[in-house]
Amino acid sequence: MTNKAITIIDIAKILGVSKSTVSRALKDHPDISNATKEAVQMMAKQLKYKPNAVAMSLRHKKSKVIGLIVPTLSPFFFPSVIHGIENEVNKRGYNLMILQSNESYEREVLNVDILQSNNVEGILVSISRKTENLSHFTALIEDNTPIVFFDRIPKSIQADMVLVDDISGAFNAVEHLISIGKRKIAICLGNPNLLISSNRLSGYKKALKKHSIEINEEFIITGQSSEEAENETKRLLELTNPPDAILAISDLTMSGIMKALYAAKIKIPEDIAVIGFCEDTFSQMYNPPVSTIDPMGIEIGKIAAERLFQRIHENNILEPKTINLSSRLIIRDSTKV
Amino acid sequence: MTNKAITIIDIAKILGVSKSTVSRALKDHPDISNATKEAVQMMAKQLKYKPNAVAMSLRHKKSKVIGLIVPTLSPFFFPSVIHGIENEVNKRGYNLMILQSNESYEREVLNVDILQSNNVEGILVSISRKTENLSHFTALIEDNTPIVFFDRIPKSIQADMVLVDDISGAFNAVEHLISIGKRKIAICLGNPNLLISSNRLSGYKKALKKHSIEINEEFIITGQSSEEAENETKRLLELTNPPDAILAISDLTMSGIMKALYAAKIKIPEDIAVIGFCEDTFSQMYNPPVSTIDPMGIEIGKIAAERLFQRIHENNILEPKTINLSSRLIIRDSTKV
Repeated sequence: MTNKAITIIDIAKILGVSKSTVSRALKDHPDISNATKEAVQMMAKQLKYKPNAVAMSLRHKKSKVIGLIVPTLSPFFFPSVIHGIENEVNKRGYNLMILQSNESYEREVLNVDILQSNNVEGILVSISRKTENLSHFTALIEDNTPIVFFDRIPKSIQADMVLVDDISGAFNAVEHLISIGKRKIAICLGNPNLLISSNRLSGYKKALKKHSIEINEEFIITGQSSEEAENETKRLLELTNPPDAILAISDLTMSGIMKALYAAKIKIPEDIAVIGFCEDTFSQMYNPPVSTIDPMGIEIGKIAAERLFQRIHENNILEPKTINLSSRLIIRDSTKV
Repeated sequence: MTNKAITIIDIAKILGVSKSTVSRALKDHPDISNATKEAVQMMAKQLKYKPNAVAMSLRHKKSKVIGLIVPTLSPFFFPSVIHGIENEVNKRGYNLMILQSNESYEREVLNVDILQSNNVEGILVSISRKTENLSHFTALIEDNTPIVFFDRIPKSIQADMVLVDDISGAFNAVEHLISIGKRKIAICLGNPNLLISSNRLSGYKKALKKHSIEINEEFIITGQSSEEAENETKRLLELTNPPDAILAISDLTMSGIMKALYAAKIKIPEDIAVIGFCEDTFSQMYNPPVSTIDPMGIEIGKIAAERLFQRIHENNILEPKTINLSSRLIIRDSTKV
């Protein structure tokens, strides 16, 4: 250990308390008990912790590295976001270090540690499905590390957020289907625990209500995998009164829906029109190419990175804000009647 | 700098020589001139470089992190490889740190530095298109860092390599097309500088020769983007004697080929049969689903990671070997007559 600077992380580990407790104890914060303060300060002394010299110089050493934590690198969505981030990062002469949480809270906490020990200048995060305790992020914020959340954002934390307005995206998609004469509109949702599912469903319902179309619970299906979406779509087609349009919540569900429609030799869009939240690359692979509400991956990445660099350049003294992007509707043959 | 160990990288930077020169100079290697040796040894003394104490202790500290350098995270191929790697890395309680070279030699060199300074226990690399000078890798090998190359491998370096046998993959695809009665077989190549292009082309030619089918240069087209593949396919269709089958070298070219075939309302496989080196997820998105020579992304990742852990556990004293995987042919409706 002699060659490496002691950090608050080391002290926190030895004492079995959180980093933010150590940080606050060292700053004599009123929320921390005197007993804890004494323990932390004794340990800091014993380990020769040097906040002003070593840690500060470390922090001010420009690593020129931005850290990124994503839940997954599956081919859909996040590669686009990373592309948008990298354009910004590279043109400023920085490098990007990517870590996956694999939807695990424990791994996400570990990822934060790795990025800190690598002295990154700022962090971009899309949180895992399992993350509820946010102390690994609040500690970063208290430690004055620039951080921007995007897409999968935590609730109840004061920080920058970059998002797409999913409610209006789904709303516009459904209005578009209505405008081409469809009234029996189904929706295929993905993971029900994700905010995008509930937001897109609420946009769907809002549009139906506006046009006085009754909500048919049979038309609301869920496909957490391509196979599940395929099977659920087959079930839809067997209804006595099947839908005349389907809204797919993601690329994954779209691929299952299209397989089921191909197999049943459904005419698209005459019999059933199709629209989804799909990446451009993939929506054009189908026959016919499918209309899409652009999930704006590249833009999200670009804007999150720009905001992060703004924080870095202005020494992180900016009021947190939420940036809500409007998504574009791209009309292709699957909804052209 | 007082709190951070001086490394050979620091000495190399100050003197403007390579890391491997510094490493060899410190070991009194006969290839290094006496003048260089003196300069390096003086600088090492001046900076208080401690190879045996500090560097070794750093090296032996288990970071439980594996570094990965890929040329790109574009949705095709590498996400599968990463998936295969992560399964192995995670089940051993390790974490994966991913860096992209973005097909830049300079960025790849920087990535190696970042991984070293993060004290990774081993490195997996698929090299950039631009990489010719390999000294950043030879220095790693001389420094006894476990390393395994996969897919895009360097020539002329003694190290572990994991590859798919592309020649036999293309050969088998063409033989399959011949077996269903096709004789006018086209191939759409990608980037001509990549080894996969020349290997797959040579497998294609080998199969045609074996079956005494003359090679028609008009049938060998190149699509470095989906659009280029689409336009080149349109050109093929306008030939007085168009092909009756097409072999696509990648997902990207396949998407362009299929767009052109859809637009021309070609019957697949009756008029033109289609086969490609495509990821499973994508090959099933087309109508009809396309036959594929599995690019084996997950397997490549799995085997490369297994080999790396073998190196780590056996203290890196293994003879370098090349592992050549045979790819599978998956037959779907695009070649079922």
